[in-house]
Amino acid sequence: MYTLTTFRSVPSFAVGHVRDLRVRWALEEAGQSYDLRLIGFEDKESPAYRREQPFAQVPVLHDGDLALFETGAILLHLGERHPVLLPRDPAARAQATMWMFAALNSVEPYVGNLANLVAFSMDQPWAEAQRPVLEEIALKRLGQVDDWLEGRTYLAGEFGAADILMTTVVRLLDGMGYVERFARLTAWRDRCTARPAYRKALAAQVAQYVVEPAVA
Amino acid sequence: MYTLTTFRSVPSFAVGHVRDLRVRWALEEAGQSYDLRLIGFEDKESPAYRREQPFAQVPVLHDGDLALFETGAILLHLGERHPVLLPRDPAARAQATMWMFAALNSVEPYVGNLANLVAFSMDQPWAEAQRPVLEEIALKRLGQVDDWLEGRTYLAGEFGAADILMTTVVRLLDGMGYVERFARLTAWRDRCTARPAYRKALAAQVAQYVVEPAVA
Repeated sequence: MYTLTTFRSVPSFAVGHVRDLRVRWALEEAGQSYDLRLIGFEDKESPAYRREQPFAQVPVLHDGDLALFETGAILLHLGERHPVLLPRDPAARAQATMWMFAALNSVEPYVGNLANLVAFSMDQPWAEAQRPVLEEIALKRLGQVDDWLEGRTYLAGEFGAADILMTTVVRLLDGMGYVERFARLTAWRDRCTARPAYRKALAAQVAQYVVEPAVA
Repeated sequence: MYTLTTFRSVPSFAVGHVRDLRVRWALEEAGQSYDLRLIGFEDKESPAYRREQPFAQVPVLHDGDLALFETGAILLHLGERHPVLLPRDPAARAQATMWMFAALNSVEPYVGNLANLVAFSMDQPWAEAQRPVLEEIALKRLGQVDDWLEGRTYLAGEFGAADILMTTVVRLLDGMGYVERFARLTAWRDRCTARPAYRKALAAQVAQYVVEPAVA
């Protein structure tokens, strides 16, 4: 049985983007149910929680006695249990893990920097000068993923954990018009976010914060 | 047989920090020899190389027919072949993979932003205003790793792939005085970089660029 730990309440801008979405989506793809353990924003710095999650973040996934942090490691763990998330063939599996790491280390840092600037810092005196610098590398990365998707339906063979991670990375730029400059990337993202498991996972996250009103 | 692809020549500031070091170090720990395939800086954008490495970066590791990119995925692959890099016990292995992803997704993006600012951008008009912003989150992350290291010799049980990745992340701040604010982190880094396999790997990278003079 899986237990997913996430925040009871988040700022409204984060609703739909809390990283537990990656795990919810993976569990839905694998047809696995899960319990929720909700913690307060203040609980994240407690010594007990820091032993589970050294960076005071969410999510944590419990699988029996195992407490897992880092969404990449969680999806790798789930992929080893549920082949629908990660293929068994060694070459196909290697391709999938490459794209899992690529999403988190070659794309997210640059996309995240740009998304944070546009979403939160455009009123800062340095924002206008920073913007083209951050756009250049983020757009380069998006273009490289777009190039890779030529002739491909998903990042690494069948749909899997790599697509889940990269979709949530690309979604950081929602509403900013960057992703839509790339036709293959946009079509791939729309293919991923049209999946019933994604829609169910997103609805579950959003519904939680309707029940538990978001705090500013 | 392993073949490691890296650049024939790099700018002098990069000598000792090219990411092939992670793979060289892992291979030395595992007692594995490897061939080098050297490519020019201009070769990285060729269509043939982009099929191997979609982000036009180094390294690539060939293991027989398998061509691997992303140092995280390469070290995971090597860890599955060489237990000295990644334990076999499922709980210990999960702990190690969590710290591999943590190095690359929870620490490197922030440490990398700060290191790049201090190393390359302090002459920019926005640098002084940016510096405290980037310092705050990078130092927070370093402090969290330092906390985790209380009572631990390495990040996840025995020395392994996670320590290799995190050491190279922390080294991005070499000479900047940030890491040295944290006693456990500094002691752990010094423990890792004292290992014969690290010294051999670093010497091999540096020696290559003495033979092949660095280009600016």
